[in-house]
Amino acid sequence: MTQLEAARKGKITPEIEKVAKEEGLHPEILRQKVAEGTVVIPANRVHLSKNLKRIVGIGEGLRTKVNANLGTSYDYVNVAEEVQKLKVAMEVGADTVMDLSTGGNLRAIRQTLMALAEVPLGSVPVYEAEFEAARKKGSVFHLDVDDFLQAIETHAKDGVDFMTIHAGITLEGLRFMKEQGRTTWIVSRGGGLLAAWMMYHNRENPLYEHFDDVLDIMKTYDVTVSLGDSLRPGSIADSFDRPQIHELLVLGELVDRARKAGVQVMVEGPGHVPLDEIEAQVLAEKKICKGAPFYVLGPLPTDVGAGWDHITGAIGGALAAASGVDFLCYVTPAEHLGLPTPEHVRTGVIAFRIAAHIGDIVKGVKGAKEWDLAMSRARYALDWEAQLRLALDPVRAREIFEQRSSKTEACSMCGPFCPMNLIEKFLKDAQKAREEVRQVLQEMALRE
Amino acid sequence: MTQLEAARKGKITPEIEKVAKEEGLHPEILRQKVAEGTVVIPANRVHLSKNLKRIVGIGEGLRTKVNANLGTSYDYVNVAEEVQKLKVAMEVGADTVMDLSTGGNLRAIRQTLMALAEVPLGSVPVYEAEFEAARKKGSVFHLDVDDFLQAIETHAKDGVDFMTIHAGITLEGLRFMKEQGRTTWIVSRGGGLLAAWMMYHNRENPLYEHFDDVLDIMKTYDVTVSLGDSLRPGSIADSFDRPQIHELLVLGELVDRARKAGVQVMVEGPGHVPLDEIEAQVLAEKKICKGAPFYVLGPLPTDVGAGWDHITGAIGGALAAASGVDFLCYVTPAEHLGLPTPEHVRTGVIAFRIAAHIGDIVKGVKGAKEWDLAMSRARYALDWEAQLRLALDPVRAREIFEQRSSKTEACSMCGPFCPMNLIEKFLKDAQKAREEVRQVLQEMALRE
Repeated sequence: MTQLEAARKGKITPEIEKVAKEEGLHPEILRQKVAEGTVVIPANRVHLSKNLKRIVGIGEGLRTKVNANLGTSYDYVNVAEEVQKLKVAMEVGADTVMDLSTGGNLRAIRQTLMALAEVPLGSVPVYEAEFEAARKKGSVFHLDVDDFLQAIETHAKDGVDFMTIHAGITLEGLRFMKEQGRTTWIVSRGGGLLAAWMMYHNRENPLYEHFDDVLDIMKTYDVTVSLGDSLRPGSIADSFDRPQIHELLVLGELVDRARKAGVQVMVEGPGHVPLDEIEAQVLAEKKICKGAPFYVLGPLPTDVGAGWDHITGAIGGALAAASGVDFLCYVTPAEHLGLPTPEHVRTGVIAFRIAAHIGDIVKGVKGAKEWDLAMSRARYALDWEAQLRLALDPVRAREIFEQRSSKTEACSMCGPFCPMNLIEKFLKDAQKAREEVRQVLQEMALRE
Repeated sequence: MTQLEAARKGKITPEIEKVAKEEGLHPEILRQKVAEGTVVIPANRVHLSKNLKRIVGIGEGLRTKVNANLGTSYDYVNVAEEVQKLKVAMEVGADTVMDLSTGGNLRAIRQTLMALAEVPLGSVPVYEAEFEAARKKGSVFHLDVDDFLQAIETHAKDGVDFMTIHAGITLEGLRFMKEQGRTTWIVSRGGGLLAAWMMYHNRENPLYEHFDDVLDIMKTYDVTVSLGDSLRPGSIADSFDRPQIHELLVLGELVDRARKAGVQVMVEGPGHVPLDEIEAQVLAEKKICKGAPFYVLGPLPTDVGAGWDHITGAIGGALAAASGVDFLCYVTPAEHLGLPTPEHVRTGVIAFRIAAHIGDIVKGVKGAKEWDLAMSRARYALDWEAQLRLALDPVRAREIFEQRSSKTEACSMCGPFCPMNLIEKFLKDAQKAREEVRQVLQEMALRE
């Protein structure tokens, strides 16, 4: 039984139990959400039986989760570096990772990462399907549905916890795109390969046509389907256009089918979206896909942030999370420029953890506001050890604090003029405070 | 005549002319906004007659501007470093700078920065007033209104274009604060010093009582008053509370008085604000202060981002700008930890320029969306020189692009699988595209 099937039968699985405990929810409440499909728990049986240490719930009422993309490319096939990225991502608090390798021996790389991944690991099997077809049949265009299903099965056997399945791009969606025209047309790598195949053969998307076969495999291993958005806007000009929304309608139907089959399912979303359209994007997904967990890439509210798209994406991601998005795929400073380095991975995860937390404060997620309150109390008390411990990134906070240290009990920006310290002293003992201020100002005057 | 007075008399000053040109507005439209007070042009006559090269308009319908804070502290008095920060800030596109020095010879530092500042420079004269009182009278608590007025006049004479005046904190505001209680009480450095003085003497704020005298000086030099928010929330728990909103009411009255006196005026705002309260904060200021330009610090939608508060602030700043904020004061990675370094200044300015631009897209500022469209077109065309030139930070974009270079015409993330490239080729010549894809996949297969 999948988590969804078990929950529907009223069973509180050990995984539901663990997630409920971590999120501070009653297990029965969480079971209902899993049964409805508004929460998924990506935990492939194979991974679960081996090294999946962190059980992660994604969806309504839970902490917003952050995914870090890893993986080789045509230009950079360095497995040691990918292992390092995985370790960095887990170290700084990524909730999940995805192996998006498109260079080297894809299966060997995945197995290496899988063996080290203590968090759920996702993948995009379409790459491997196409590479295998090219290898075996001499051309990616000889690829057929069996190649897709075989790749999906291989990934499932290897323990992949969630898979991006680009089943929502159809000939009708491509027609909407061609009729309308677009600024950046298709920016999904898996979706683009699929669209090329469809355009070449003028044939329907095999993943759409054989979605039930895909679901069969997913069910066997309890892999969570992550419905890919091949036609996501890749520039703000393309946001919320007809091809994007047509695909969303198809994804809504596929959500129904997956749930009916007892397969856990979530929906992927944009992409490049102006800030004032993010809320509407979230609303559209939640309505059309009947509350399926929403997993967005960024979103990026501007196209011009290259080099700093972790910030662009964190801005969009924070508003998305506050509007109800459940799962954020990070964007690194290398986005639009090249394959990220381990340092880019670190920066991307932190930026998106900030975004997710800002969203969680708005969502009213348990413990979110309380964390901020503890930090502000430590700040007011000038308790530096507590402040550094409570910082979302204690390492970087300590680094800067020590680099720019102060001779005073406050920080080196305000020093003796720290307003919190001053007011606290005045509220407690105005006479003593007065004397202290006098001494400091006197000292300053003498120094000049 | 100040810009405000001139505009009211129907005069299009050379400064209005320049700002209109830069913003792509008709000068007459801009003149009306300056006359109404919904736009200010901070340009002290003294600075204007010397080295003020960039004339900057702030307010309704204009591009959102970004300010970078500079200045020494008790712990770090390094004038060369402050000069470097000023240069870095101007280089990466800060629209204005503020000298917030509280260490060393304040006037000499200001004059050094002033002589190099080609953009409007702001200051907070309360620091100098208090230091001078301490020096001359042996205690900051012997300070009186003349010390304040003298410091303000000195700053005006030195050419300061806009000054933070903490005239809105009153005994009644302090009463609201004490009755209610707060998490971080007061986090404004100038406001904190003033509050300490008020609490010690149990006397009204001299800047409030003698606001007309302050306005007289401002008018003479055409300094723009930036009404400081001494009681701004310094933790999200304190956002939109009674003391904050009481001060905002007082600031609203002071806006009326400044405008009546022909003095240009804007209003400073928070601070730490949960993401879902930002829009309401902006609305409250715009209504209560009758459309006066709104200048916010961040805002920061979480308290736990120490080490990364440029990102926290950019998230809040983007939403603030999109909601109608006119002017963003940057926050650097060093916020809450220490005095920023030149590298922190660089990072802070870029992060907030991204936030401002994201807001400008939503506001419909002229040229904002067009910039993104040009970038996306260059991206789709794989025109790398154009993409790097169009990046908000061309230096960092090039750095990463070269660090992670590709052997292909695309970037090293997707390489030959660049979906934009693939689709473009298919749309143009499917047969040729097919052959290219075949070759690449063949090569990949052979490499393994």
